[in-house]
Amino acid sequence: MRNLLFTLTYDGTAYHGWQVQKNGISVQEVLQDALETVLGARGNVIGCSRTDSGVHANRYYFNMRTQSSMGCSRLVRALNANLPFDIAVTSCREVDVDFHARYDCISKQYIYKIWNAPVRDPFKNGYSLHYPHLLDTEMLAKEAMAFLGEHDFASFCSAHSKIKSTVRNVSLFNVERVGDDVCFIIEADGFLYNMVRIMTGTLLKIAQGKIEKGTISDIINSKDRSRAGVTAPAHGLYLNKVKYPFD
Amino acid sequence: MRNLLFTLTYDGTAYHGWQVQKNGISVQEVLQDALETVLGARGNVIGCSRTDSGVHANRYYFNMRTQSSMGCSRLVRALNANLPFDIAVTSCREVDVDFHARYDCISKQYIYKIWNAPVRDPFKNGYSLHYPHLLDTEMLAKEAMAFLGEHDFASFCSAHSKIKSTVRNVSLFNVERVGDDVCFIIEADGFLYNMVRIMTGTLLKIAQGKIEKGTISDIINSKDRSRAGVTAPAHGLYLNKVKYPFD
Repeated sequence: MRNLLFTLTYDGTAYHGWQVQKNGISVQEVLQDALETVLGARGNVIGCSRTDSGVHANRYYFNMRTQSSMGCSRLVRALNANLPFDIAVTSCREVDVDFHARYDCISKQYIYKIWNAPVRDPFKNGYSLHYPHLLDTEMLAKEAMAFLGEHDFASFCSAHSKIKSTVRNVSLFNVERVGDDVCFIIEADGFLYNMVRIMTGTLLKIAQGKIEKGTISDIINSKDRSRAGVTAPAHGLYLNKVKYPFD
Repeated sequence: MRNLLFTLTYDGTAYHGWQVQKNGISVQEVLQDALETVLGARGNVIGCSRTDSGVHANRYYFNMRTQSSMGCSRLVRALNANLPFDIAVTSCREVDVDFHARYDCISKQYIYKIWNAPVRDPFKNGYSLHYPHLLDTEMLAKEAMAFLGEHDFASFCSAHSKIKSTVRNVSLFNVERVGDDVCFIIEADGFLYNMVRIMTGTLLKIAQGKIEKGTISDIINSKDRSRAGVTAPAHGLYLNKVKYPFD
């Protein structure tokens, strides 16, 4: 029995997130269909993360145990030939038989992309949040420092989440600008439901003066979701990479 | 009577090119609908160029004579509020009353984008040609030098074109690579029907060894369309900018 770790990239626009569900087509379902076509049997695919409807992935990871002896590069080509244009498998490697793409993940990195220009960019529609007013990225970077470290992020978790602990350790929060493209790059040992989108919504409220500067620590300590900003739209969010013990 | 020059940017995926036609929706038609809504009268919009079905524009120019006294920045905002997401007006300025966006054009610049990696990129689907084999951009840049200067480009013009002269002056042909993104940047005083796409198809045939290196001048001199490469797909092509006397 081999255990294979794959990376894939997908445009999440057309999908109801990663995980198989009844309401709509998921990335996992489409992937399992392709694997069934290529390997002749339906595999049990283990994803690194649930991603929301409409969220994109630059690098998503999943593993799968299989008895197939097909070589990794041939498998990548065969899968891509059977996947739609908005999903592509980018690599495949053999890993320890007990490796698990979700449990063995050390940290994840997300990027939230913002198109920060007065007029929308047709080519970024669905791929960046359009925010027309000039963002002071230096100020936002300073504010975002309050997210760093281990905190109870209950204020930055959507209410209907049933998770046990809301404590997470944020190790990186960069605010970068290249021309009119602004992005937030966030790394943590794990993320709560909608956490990056609520952090983004909160920073945008600070930019608008609707949440006071210097209050992110207070909002964290309040453990009150209603004090944070609104959940920013899914289409600006990208799972960018995942760190594993062997990296 | 004012004469207004606008720039716009559009994702050409959903359109049958710029020009109004019976077969499908054009950018011009959608734009004229928006102008009618904003100005209350259907304007006569003069585009800088016909673009093919599926071709994109980073900067497209059109002018329009109007009796409206609406300020330029207000007009831009009002038009964008009435245009679909895949089209955006980016600027507006007043020009001489006899200025004509097509006749007064000195030169145009097109970009042809190629995603040059073994695996497709879902985010570039419809926005770059996927060419999986590594391109030798130095070699291609050297080959493309033969396009420079004034030539009869009949070999690089689709057969059903009814244009009088096929002589054009190509002033720039750059081949650039940034990571796995390769692009051809081409500037000329004018372009024949499908000219950039046939030039691109020809360079790709040279890359494949199906057209011999050093033969572009021969192909030009032959004035024989069948000696050049196939027409590369529309979705990699962008009108990038247009030069006018006042630039």
